[in-house]
Amino acid sequence: MSPRIVTLTTDFGHGDGFVAAMKGVILGLSSTVTLVDISHEIPPQDIRHAAFVLGTVCRYFPPDAIHLAVVDPGVGSSRSPILIETPHGTYVGPDNGIFSRALLGFRAAMQDDGAAGRQSEDGPALETAPANCKAYALNKAKYWLEPVSDTFHGRDIFAPVVGHYAGGVPAHELGSLITEVRTLPMPLPRSSGNVVHGQIIHVDRFGNLVSNIAIESPVGVSLEVNIGDRRISGPSRSYASATGLLAIVGSHGFLEIAVRNGSAAESLNAGVGTPLTVVFREGLTPED
Amino acid sequence: MSPRIVTLTTDFGHGDGFVAAMKGVILGLSSTVTLVDISHEIPPQDIRHAAFVLGTVCRYFPPDAIHLAVVDPGVGSSRSPILIETPHGTYVGPDNGIFSRALLGFRAAMQDDGAAGRQSEDGPALETAPANCKAYALNKAKYWLEPVSDTFHGRDIFAPVVGHYAGGVPAHELGSLITEVRTLPMPLPRSSGNVVHGQIIHVDRFGNLVSNIAIESPVGVSLEVNIGDRRISGPSRSYASATGLLAIVGSHGFLEIAVRNGSAAESLNAGVGTPLTVVFREGLTPED
Amino acid sequence: MSPRIVTLTTDFGHGDGFVAAMKGVILGLSSTVTLVDISHEIPPQDIRHAAFVLGTVCRYFPPDAIHLAVVDPGVGSSRSPILIETPHGTYVGPDNGIFSRALLGFRAAMQDDGAAGRQSEDGPALETAPANCKAYALNKAKYWLEPVSDTFHGRDIFAPVVGHYAGGVPAHELGSLITEVRTLPMPLPRSSGNVVHGQIIHVDRFGNLVSNIAIESPVGVSLEVNIGDRRISGPSRSYASATGLLAIVGSHGFLEIAVRNGSAAESLNAGVGTPLTVVFREGLTPED
Repeated sequence: MSPRIVTLTTDFGHGDGFVAAMKGVILGLSSTVTLVDISHEIPPQDIRHAAFVLGTVCRYFPPDAIHLAVVDPGVGSSRSPILIETPHGTYVGPDNGIFSRALLGFRAAMQDDGAAGRQSEDGPALETAPANCKAYALNKAKYWLEPVSDTFHGRDIFAPVVGHYAGGVPAHELGSLITEVRTLPMPLPRSSGNVVHGQIIHVDRFGNLVSNIAIESPVGVSLEVNIGDRRISGPSRSYASATGLLAIVGSHGFLEIAVRNGSAAESLNAGVGTPLTVVFREGLTPED
Repeated sequence: MSPRIVTLTTDFGHGDGFVAAMKGVILGLSSTVTLVDISHEIPPQDIRHAAFVLGTVCRYFPPDAIHLAVVDPGVGSSRSPILIETPHGTYVGPDNGIFSRALLGFRAAMQDDGAAGRQSEDGPALETAPANCKAYALNKAKYWLEPVSDTFHGRDIFAPVVGHYAGGVPAHELGSLITEVRTLPMPLPRSSGNVVHGQIIHVDRFGNLVSNIAIESPVGVSLEVNIGDRRISGPSRSYASATGLLAIVGSHGFLEIAVRNGSAAESLNAGVGTPLTVVFREGLTPED
Repeated sequence: MSPRIVTLTTDFGHGDGFVAAMKGVILGLSSTVTLVDISHEIPPQDIRHAAFVLGTVCRYFPPDAIHLAVVDPGVGSSRSPILIETPHGTYVGPDNGIFSRALLGFRAAMQDDGAAGRQSEDGPALETAPANCKAYALNKAKYWLEPVSDTFHGRDIFAPVVGHYAGGVPAHELGSLITEVRTLPMPLPRSSGNVVHGQIIHVDRFGNLVSNIAIESPVGVSLEVNIGDRRISGPSRSYASATGLLAIVGSHGFLEIAVRNGSAAESLNAGVGTPLTVVFREGLTPED
């Protein structure tokens, strides 16, 4: 049988041994798992950033992988620890929206920002879990480490739950079935003829600006991007093929704004939420 | 049979491939071990920092884990390479005190700073190894790589020893039994009624100040911390629950001084060795 | 059977999940491999730096290891993806010289800079692959992910090829045999009596200057290094054994210039390509 994969995504960094403590707990309960770090350099407490990184990477793992994610500014508060079984992996972490993008493919209808159901101003919306997924509130303390620290549920709740689950304990033993999970608003682009209005949803470590406009393939496409007071023709086929600002279909499948050997975020003073408009002159319009 | 875990703790960073060279050597000798990085971002040559990180993390690994630690400013000098078998893991590295905190639980009586036996001013004390542990000076060069570099015993001595040991070579083949190992002074708090005098023993990457005052659980405890000219009431139950300075029982089980979204080390101009006084108004006094 | 080792060397960093996507693809095709990170902190697009790190580390891995390296400024251009089988490992990555140093031991005669065959000014030379190696241009798209991104062949071409190869697909199924691979110029030192003229070929993260002058052992050697307007007697046996500039035989087996607790690169305003002259007064002359 193949070893089970457990991925880890946190904002703990690599210096203090926090990630290693979680790995020790998992391996102590399920010694044959294969551990894979996705990132431990999520900006501190930036749930949205973690949701993007995990959501764009998890699809490259086998469907029986377990994805543990701990960016948890609400640790010690009333937010629930959850486990979600989906057709493309099991997700374990705090119920704060960190799995929003990973779950996106499973939602019957994606909601636009403004339409999001019960979204509060300072937190993620409560939303019905996709029909083909099962979500559990982790509330069986006998599967946790004792005592549970106020500040490190990654080690004391999430890691032992992952270890037991990988070792064969079924989800319904670890928690109680719930029907709703919290999700972050995932802004969708709006089309109008050959014009698409979108926004920046992620800035990577090079300062590349990733938009929410998906383009399946750049072949045969011609477009013009308007962002701030700048106009960019594209798409370019490589980061090296233009001087100055360029628009490119990045490896995530989204239209990106980049600067060769520089930071587009700095050049344009742009970031998550910055609007952009794309005029498609030829080729595919974005999927929607 | 479960794969054997080998953890690695160094100050080598992630850039130059030094850690990978050690892993290649280990896997070449014992291909089925599971490697886990604890930290490679120990501040260069900071043995005390490494001792803290390893000592607080190792307890979360199974007792048959092998812990390789190489922060080794004395590489090429006369300090011995050692291997220590304990009931909670085997430790391999230079005999410079790096395992002091990992061994703490095994010492018959913890010594205070001032009482430390033969401590010299510029180095760790020589101390009798705990009775339930066995320490070996690694002196069997046939288990090392040839030639041994003057500057990289991690790859040429420690990694091959770990590989052979994980592969079944017993410790007494790899070295000679010794009765004493070097340990760093581990300052203990002093109690006087409901007042405890302690000091800062670790500063993490966020600038949180970790003291040597252990508190099993914050439940039902009320206390006041005096550090520098500041007075802090606590303990808080989460980093988010206070503004400004706060005192919290951190995930290591020690009382920590933190600042929400800031560095307590900078705010207080404090670091390792800074004294603090805690007045317990209610609840448990610290274990001792 | 031992699990197959796959090493990874990239300039992707640890933040964005790019390395994890490659690992997911590999593990999905060959679930029992042991993954080892060599470095993901290669300076962006610095092929020469990657060639040094990989070339000095790969020898410590078993000969059936697979070494995946992706520093790929030409991604999306006409450079070929290649796979090279050698007696000491299989190498997979772009044909841009990144395996130059790893292949060095296998070249019948090492070429000096000036003598390099068809070297163009702005790129690596095309050179006949060593006789005991087999090189393949990876051109069988059925073993790739669909669609292949313009910007991330690491995930879409190299990782699936490694996964299939580790799983048993032979190299000749994955590509077509070729007779030449691109190599970077590897400057050799020139000897004249007891004087050797060399140059700096690598700067590590501490600012240590690694030369191309190999010394098998420092024992019994006495030498004087001239670099810039400075003169250094050596070799020292440890980084701690001198004040100011020192010359030491580093763990790679090359003569290095270092400064205790400082950066020799900054002190000397030196870098890759800086010439140095070594006068051997006693002991071995460098191998050549």
